[in-house]
Amino acid sequence: MSTKCERLAGLPRTGPGLGRAWRAVLALVVAVSLGTHGTTATAAPRAVVDGHAVRVEVLTRALSYPWALTFLPDGAALITERDGRLRLWADGRLDPRPIDGVPAVWASGQGGLLDVLVHPDVDRTGWIYLSLSHPDGGGRAHTRVVRAVFDRAGHTLRDVEVIVDALPTGRGGRHFGARLAFGGDGMLYITTGERGDGDRAQDPMDLAGKLLRLHPDGAIPDDNPFVGRAGVRPEIYALGTRNGQGMDVHPDTGAVWFHEHGPRGGDEVNLARAGVNYGWPVVTHGRAYSGLPIGEGREKPGMTPPVWTWVPSIAPSGLAIYDGDLFPNWRGDLFVGALKARLIARLEMDGDRVVTEERFLEGDLGRLRALEVGPDGALYLLTDESEGMLARLVPEAPGLK
Amino acid sequence: MSTKCERLAGLPRTGPGLGRAWRAVLALVVAVSLGTHGTTATAAPRAVVDGHAVRVEVLTRALSYPWALTFLPDGAALITERDGRLRLWADGRLDPRPIDGVPAVWASGQGGLLDVLVHPDVDRTGWIYLSLSHPDGGGRAHTRVVRAVFDRAGHTLRDVEVIVDALPTGRGGRHFGARLAFGGDGMLYITTGERGDGDRAQDPMDLAGKLLRLHPDGAIPDDNPFVGRAGVRPEIYALGTRNGQGMDVHPDTGAVWFHEHGPRGGDEVNLARAGVNYGWPVVTHGRAYSGLPIGEGREKPGMTPPVWTWVPSIAPSGLAIYDGDLFPNWRGDLFVGALKARLIARLEMDGDRVVTEERFLEGDLGRLRALEVGPDGALYLLTDESEGMLARLVPEAPGLK
Repeated sequence: MSTKCERLAGLPRTGPGLGRAWRAVLALVVAVSLGTHGTTATAAPRAVVDGHAVRVEVLTRALSYPWALTFLPDGAALITERDGRLRLWADGRLDPRPIDGVPAVWASGQGGLLDVLVHPDVDRTGWIYLSLSHPDGGGRAHTRVVRAVFDRAGHTLRDVEVIVDALPTGRGGRHFGARLAFGGDGMLYITTGERGDGDRAQDPMDLAGKLLRLHPDGAIPDDNPFVGRAGVRPEIYALGTRNGQGMDVHPDTGAVWFHEHGPRGGDEVNLARAGVNYGWPVVTHGRAYSGLPIGEGREKPGMTPPVWTWVPSIAPSGLAIYDGDLFPNWRGDLFVGALKARLIARLEMDGDRVVTEERFLEGDLGRLRALEVGPDGALYLLTDESEGMLARLVPEAPGLK
Repeated sequence: MSTKCERLAGLPRTGPGLGRAWRAVLALVVAVSLGTHGTTATAAPRAVVDGHAVRVEVLTRALSYPWALTFLPDGAALITERDGRLRLWADGRLDPRPIDGVPAVWASGQGGLLDVLVHPDVDRTGWIYLSLSHPDGGGRAHTRVVRAVFDRAGHTLRDVEVIVDALPTGRGGRHFGARLAFGGDGMLYITTGERGDGDRAQDPMDLAGKLLRLHPDGAIPDDNPFVGRAGVRPEIYALGTRNGQGMDVHPDTGAVWFHEHGPRGGDEVNLARAGVNYGWPVVTHGRAYSGLPIGEGREKPGMTPPVWTWVPSIAPSGLAIYDGDLFPNWRGDLFVGALKARLIARLEMDGDRVVTEERFLEGDLGRLRALEVGPDGALYLLTDESEGMLARLVPEAPGLK
């Protein structure tokens, strides 16, 4: 019986008598057919990134607006969906049952179930951390961080405790933050958005628009920069941020880096530093289309300039500082996913200074929401879509790094 | 009589009785026709760059591989063509007669007549400077810098003097440099390429692959970093560069900045600093496609890392640090033209640190060879094409800055 390909192309049947020229034509037809309609492997987007040839391996598209992922010690991953579900990716499949025991969230606009992070010593403590928009009634909500014990066997969270509430509450669905990271100092860092009200970022008694730093149990560290200072909330590590949606710790220095969305240009990458003011909304690199500056301009004494900005905005949401072994050239580089620009940006560093930006996979994947380095050294990503993707960047060919 | 548009589209004649629907169709046809074949003004590429809406105004396409331009005090411009011609742009037109008296050049590969620069006090001194590939016979050439008096009335150069010869000579048509700039210190800075032989960049007795610094008359400044040091040529200001093809002085600091082509990634922007070694070919951010580093890697003690790199390469050739009044947001920004990537990159600085890169007009103009801020504050550019373009970026609309 002839194959579909042969019938379509009107080719004779294959057989011992088939000439070399016909075999070559047939091979070409098959190759073209595979290239157009072929497997995930052949259709996967590819890139060369700082000398490493990579391809995108799609693991699932069954996530609804996923926001964050974190890896458990055994290689399984926890994934948040913004509407309020916490999902488990294990043994190469997405568990169809959401994990029980997740607190109620205010799922509206940018709000909902946001970041998830595993305690560095989760095997001993059992703790995972979630950030979320907590419903305060009357259309109001605020960013809350909780911790809970993940009961794997019971597929549930238990012993949920509030770690911090970024109060006061606020109206509307904008700018909740809220990324979580453990610094090299063992402390929990939290970005809180200013809820669409820039002035809140400068208010020292308001936890919105800040970088917070807490002990893993929520206690306030004695060495936080404003401890004992009247009129400043002691949870605050730094002021003047707009809406930080990416944060990670550097594998060599232990320093915490975060990025935030800017207004029409002026997305920022900042290095977490005790007691500083990053300036929003007083200073920003963002611009109105008229060319007029926003606020008082780009710089002001006493306000810390960003390490990097994107003008125009890419809408960064997801930072991973590469610390795996699979792509040696990438170690210490900042990888940033972009919602609006639909790309990944690699920032190569010389100490605290960016020396190059490389953008890749632009338009290939959709809106990038989160990046995370897996225990296998692959760079995992989530896309902010109704059929959201979990995928990973792996070497183009086995053995080629 | 019907117009060509109407005849082509088979439309009825216009007139008082023509219905609204037909008029709309006609307007559309005319609009499409103008969009495709219209005037320079309607077809001009546009961009918004750091809040300034700009359009490209093409001044001429009658240049053959132009390499550099410089402005005379009265607003006229001198333009080099790589084959060896020096042209005058004055009163809105390109003088059809090449300027006489230009030295013979070795016009092969990347070699030929290269940069042109006007002495800061040209009204008094009459001097202009040229860099070129000087023919040494037997397929050999080296980078030479000359100065001459430009006799405007006679349309000729006279009193041509050699300022420096970047000897020894070399074979082949690669990597001559050779940009020229006057620093804030009044000295003449010169980038020399390593002629395709990386080791020359590290040889302290070889003037190839260096940044040189000389008095305007070619004398060696007493405060050059290697004056009196045995085994080092005193013309050298810094070592270890590959092929610098963009250089300019910062309007506020007087510091000299230059960029150089890297190998397969690793194009660099550097700040000129006395006595340093920029590392080529020992260290570079360039990479082989295999992912393996070139040389000994990216960094080495005693070698100065770049302020910025492009990975992968854009092939930068032309640096202008904006110092005009037409686009206030741009002041102090580095604008870099790219041959291979066919774009302009704007690097926004915080002191000596790049805080953002903005790329624009990508693919709209061709291979960018040179950028220069005009006395009108517009950003002028040349394209590296057989029908090379002189154009300028001007505000999109009068009064809109």
